Amino acid sequence: MTTTAKPRQSFVPVPAESHFPLENLPYGVFSTMADPAPRVGVAIGEMILDLAEIARAGLLPGLPEGVFAAAAINPFVALGRPVWSATRKRLQELLAADCPTLRDDAALRARALVAQGEARMHRPVEVMGFTDFYSSREHATNVGMMFRDKNNPLLPNWLHIPIGYNGRASTVVASATPVRRPLGQLKPPADEMPHLGPSARLDIELEMAVIVGRDTALGDVLTVAEADAAIFGYALLNDWSARDIQQWEYVPLGPFQSKAFATSIGDWVVTAEALEPFRVEGPVQHPAPLAHLRQSGPMNYDIQLAVDLAPEGTDALTVCRTSFRYMYWSSAQQLVHHASSGCTMRVGDVLGSGTVSGPTRAERGSLLEITWGGSEPIEFPNGLERRFLEDGDTVTITGWCEGEGYRVGFGSLTGTILPAQMPEAWKS
Amino acid sequence: MTTTAKPRQSFVPVPAESHFPLENLPYGVFSTMADPAPRVGVAIGEMILDLAEIARAGLLPGLPEGVFAAAAINPFVALGRPVWSATRKRLQELLAADCPTLRDDAALRARALVAQGEARMHRPVEVMGFTDFYSSREHATNVGMMFRDKNNPLLPNWLHIPIGYNGRASTVVASATPVRRPLGQLKPPADEMPHLGPSARLDIELEMAVIVGRDTALGDVLTVAEADAAIFGYALLNDWSARDIQQWEYVPLGPFQSKAFATSIGDWVVTAEALEPFRVEGPVQHPAPLAHLRQSGPMNYDIQLAVDLAPEGTDALTVCRTSFRYMYWSSAQQLVHHASSGCTMRVGDVLGSGTVSGPTRAERGSLLEITWGGSEPIEFPNGLERRFLEDGDTVTITGWCEGEGYRVGFGSLTGTILPAQMPEAWKS
Repeated sequence: MTTTAKPRQSFVPVPAESHFPLENLPYGVFSTMADPAPRVGVAIGEMILDLAEIARAGLLPGLPEGVFAAAAINPFVALGRPVWSATRKRLQELLAADCPTLRDDAALRARALVAQGEARMHRPVEVMGFTDFYSSREHATNVGMMFRDKNNPLLPNWLHIPIGYNGRASTVVASATPVRRPLGQLKPPADEMPHLGPSARLDIELEMAVIVGRDTALGDVLTVAEADAAIFGYALLNDWSARDIQQWEYVPLGPFQSKAFATSIGDWVVTAEALEPFRVEGPVQHPAPLAHLRQSGPMNYDIQLAVDLAPEGTDALTVCRTSFRYMYWSSAQQLVHHASSGCTMRVGDVLGSGTVSGPTRAERGSLLEITWGGSEPIEFPNGLERRFLEDGDTVTITGWCEGEGYRVGFGSLTGTILPAQMPEAWKS
Repeated sequence: MTTTAKPRQSFVPVPAESHFPLENLPYGVFSTMADPAPRVGVAIGEMILDLAEIARAGLLPGLPEGVFAAAAINPFVALGRPVWSATRKRLQELLAADCPTLRDDAALRARALVAQGEARMHRPVEVMGFTDFYSSREHATNVGMMFRDKNNPLLPNWLHIPIGYNGRASTVVASATPVRRPLGQLKPPADEMPHLGPSARLDIELEMAVIVGRDTALGDVLTVAEADAAIFGYALLNDWSARDIQQWEYVPLGPFQSKAFATSIGDWVVTAEALEPFRVEGPVQHPAPLAHLRQSGPMNYDIQLAVDLAPEGTDALTVCRTSFRYMYWSSAQQLVHHASSGCTMRVGDVLGSGTVSGPTRAERGSLLEITWGGSEPIEFPNGLERRFLEDGDTVTITGWCEGEGYRVGFGSLTGTILPAQMPEAWKS
């Protein structure tokens, strides 16, 4: 693992194993009881630095007025990479233990530092478009074995294209948003006709989300280097999936309502710059990608990922531990492919990586794979079993990079399943 | 065909066969040389009534200030059905031959009536989500025969679900926007490996677009009646498609870059209310849809559609004449299905109907079908042939409903193909 020397300390306490040291400073959107207007902040230790307040105090000169007094990070992201970088430097300086500006201004500190426990977090980004990729070879292989052909699980295009599809942007929701079990058309193999009912194979997909940081014009394309530089940052993503709805609906135009009921995004967007020390090489790509997709150097990130599953009234069990480093196609390659037709990309586009699965069972990022289509249930110490999600289950995804004596993390992303609601008239 | 008695005349001249009599009043967004700020208007005869101007003059009391001084119809659409209806009545009154208010106010008329020939039209709607359906049985059958199985062209789910997928909202563009031929991965059957190149099978898809007029909350569903009432109006749509990119990329997650480079939407959104007299029964649905999709009464519209193809320097040839009445699944059924998982719908969502094809060759809404995969070229009187689109070709879609002595129309939707641009570094 690549690491860097640990930089300066902050005057804000950062507990051991905190996801939010001075090296991180991820962006989020929050509000408080005292001030219910959502605004942008960065996490530091167990606090949030209110950037709208810091800007109002004149400590972020050169930025447009009100850029952080916004319900999404988009206006800041739109300012471009040099501003992202300069703002990061400035915030690291302002929060450093040896900088008196904020440290010694008790009144400003009282206004600008909010305890995370007292904040309500909102969806950090206004999602312009949501695209979901399918870039873990292990995941695509597992799904292909179960849904299609055990002996030829990877379709012929998979090794040439970072396969992806357009998802539904309107239902990308903040962490902790309850997830209603969806209704959908279900056709078990033994039935002749489909029926409408609650999904019985409700699943998670452990993913990372890329937040795109630049616009492109209609007809323009991006090189790998341009795409890499266009990525503002990453967040945790849970692409909730109804496998039974998916299996019946997905030919020939792909998943639709099976993925449209909710996609949860993490509270904190970690900048690509903060992840820079954790770059690693991805798997060898063979056959070599076509020229426009060819990359060199470490283009993956070693982000540790864990999924905890907690049935109502039962202690959480970690059902998956994996790493983002396994992804076959890098985020930059995904973005190159996305723009390759001349498709307009926008600040605030969210690209799901696809389910992150590793080579072993313990590293699989969906229940479909962990329980092998429900045939190998997860067993809890108290005797409970899970094939797919039950009502009341809570899923928590955590992600972090491990530095030397510090972590750069994403916090955690959570969601609880509510029972389906079926209108009376639809029961006939 | 259902028709109504012709209502009052307007003091604005409406030529015979005009798409824009007093019965229509479709909404669009326009600007002028004199005032380059986009704003909302309705078409009447060969003029546009500037609604921002009419509202400023105090003639549309009760509407929020500035609702028409906007670059999209969304703020108006968000006001809901009773306001759509009341505004339509009020505008019909203001434009009627026997109403002196506007007719006799020369100064206001000079400000508020703009010749269509002097206006620049913009995309009428801010596209929140773009969903593309696949609801013509004839189209799905034709494509299934060519792409999959000649003897079993319809997949098992097709007669049960209005099949659709999420498209790319960022590339829904205004009429007359030039369309750059996309690059993409192509793998002709004879080649072992794919290559990157300009699409050689560039196509159109003749569609209608629904503009959704209400928000739904996460987890909520819509009944057929609610969905029908939630449709603000319709516009012409050309869902440009690269068939060769599509064929290689579309398994298993559906079309992506083959449809992402441009989707053109018409200038004028005709309200559902203006289309009301042209409701017709759709095809008999057998097997009967599940309860939540069941509808009664006429749920289709008899909209006449024509596609003209004009190679550069050659007169246009009408290559398709069909009707929207052929659609197997109605727009209301599509919207019910879309929300059935609890998917959040938003004001400004655009739903493509899917390619509108009828039973005969002359009624097919894509070149893929008209030329049967390129095997039966279109022949022009001057000897030119077309299998798919060539650079410089212009496609024009026109749509209208035929009343007794009048038309309620959509104007025309046009686009011209620009040659592909391939970066030097990608040619290796």
